[in-house]
Amino acid sequence: MSPQSNCSATEPGLQIVADISSGELVGEGIQRVTRAIKDMKGIFRDEKSRQSLSQDAVVYRVQAVYPVGEGEEGGLFWGTTFIEPGMVGDEYFMTKGHFHANRHRGEYYMTVTGRGALILMDENRRTTFEPMHPGSLHYIRANTAHRVANIGESVLAFWACWPSDAGHDYDSIASLGFSARLRKVNGIATLVEEP
Amino acid sequence: MSPQSNCSATEPGLQIVADISSGELVGEGIQRVTRAIKDMKGIFRDEKSRQSLSQDAVVYRVQAVYPVGEGEEGGLFWGTTFIEPGMVGDEYFMTKGHFHANRHRGEYYMTVTGRGALILMDENRRTTFEPMHPGSLHYIRANTAHRVANIGESVLAFWACWPSDAGHDYDSIASLGFSARLRKVNGIATLVEEP
Repeated sequence: MSPQSNCSATEPGLQIVADISSGELVGEGIQRVTRAIKDMKGIFRDEKSRQSLSQDAVVYRVQAVYPVGEGEEGGLFWGTTFIEPGMVGDEYFMTKGHFHANRHRGEYYMTVTGRGALILMDENRRTTFEPMHPGSLHYIRANTAHRVANIGESVLAFWACWPSDAGHDYDSIASLGFSARLRKVNGIATLVEEP
Repeated sequence: MSPQSNCSATEPGLQIVADISSGELVGEGIQRVTRAIKDMKGIFRDEKSRQSLSQDAVVYRVQAVYPVGEGEEGGLFWGTTFIEPGMVGDEYFMTKGHFHANRHRGEYYMTVTGRGALILMDENRRTTFEPMHPGSLHYIRANTAHRVANIGESVLAFWACWPSDAGHDYDSIASLGFSARLRKVNGIATLVEEP
């Protein structure tokens, strides 16, 4: 029995490597979701503008790693989101946005590249945003809906880390939306309260 | 009442920016811990070598962000660890290592710069390691002690994200250690089982 017999230098682990300049994840077991213009019905204010765009144009895509089961307590997931630059009417390309199904779960975002806005809405429907730029670190508190808009002219990429028992509640946002929209007003990203 | 009245573009949030090339966090509310050679008694195999080194030489330092209270359920913490290159006898500079006090909590590491080894020991005291290099993403499972060694010739920096109710159990490692040590054997980082 060699002294190394109980050891291994080749533990499989995640086997995932991120390109630190782009945020792209490469490796085994990465789950991918893509949202095109056709998948974003009801998200933007100006539905006619959305219909006028190429329906297969990608708005954003997500790569995510799930090393434990969805819903399991105490684990974590990791992902990269890439949002293309673009507009639907006066709104920037953005994610659908969601609350965590388990409202008592936080999340981190770290911007890798591009310029964006992290739009947050608390349980009293108060909406704010935090500017995103390379290296900006954002903590999304419990009870806070979150959505990201690309306000720059290149791809916005950011890392996310969230608890495996957070879950996603897209329906609350799909039905009620956020209380304000980030619109381009005189060339500036501006939160405008919904009527 | 302007349409923007219920909105804010200047939400304070974390106000933290990371230097993506070095991992350094800059901003308000960052907690810092430094471990010098003098703080590492009992960690390395070769205590005489440790005593022969400059006692104030830094082995590693940690920057961390705690947006919620330590022990609170459902939140997350974020940090960067920087390990200097160096040896104590035939062992690489490394962190003390710990289990989570709540054994059912995972953690992510992502390497920013440098070359290292993530040393993992499961609840059956089986020790393995995963090579760390820029962009490598590592998931530390529940019930797994973890420690990082710098096996390169420059600073090793990595990001960590972990649950706010994970806690740290350093005592189990301080008293029993890991079942194997990462030693430089014929110039190669090799896990060698403890006698």
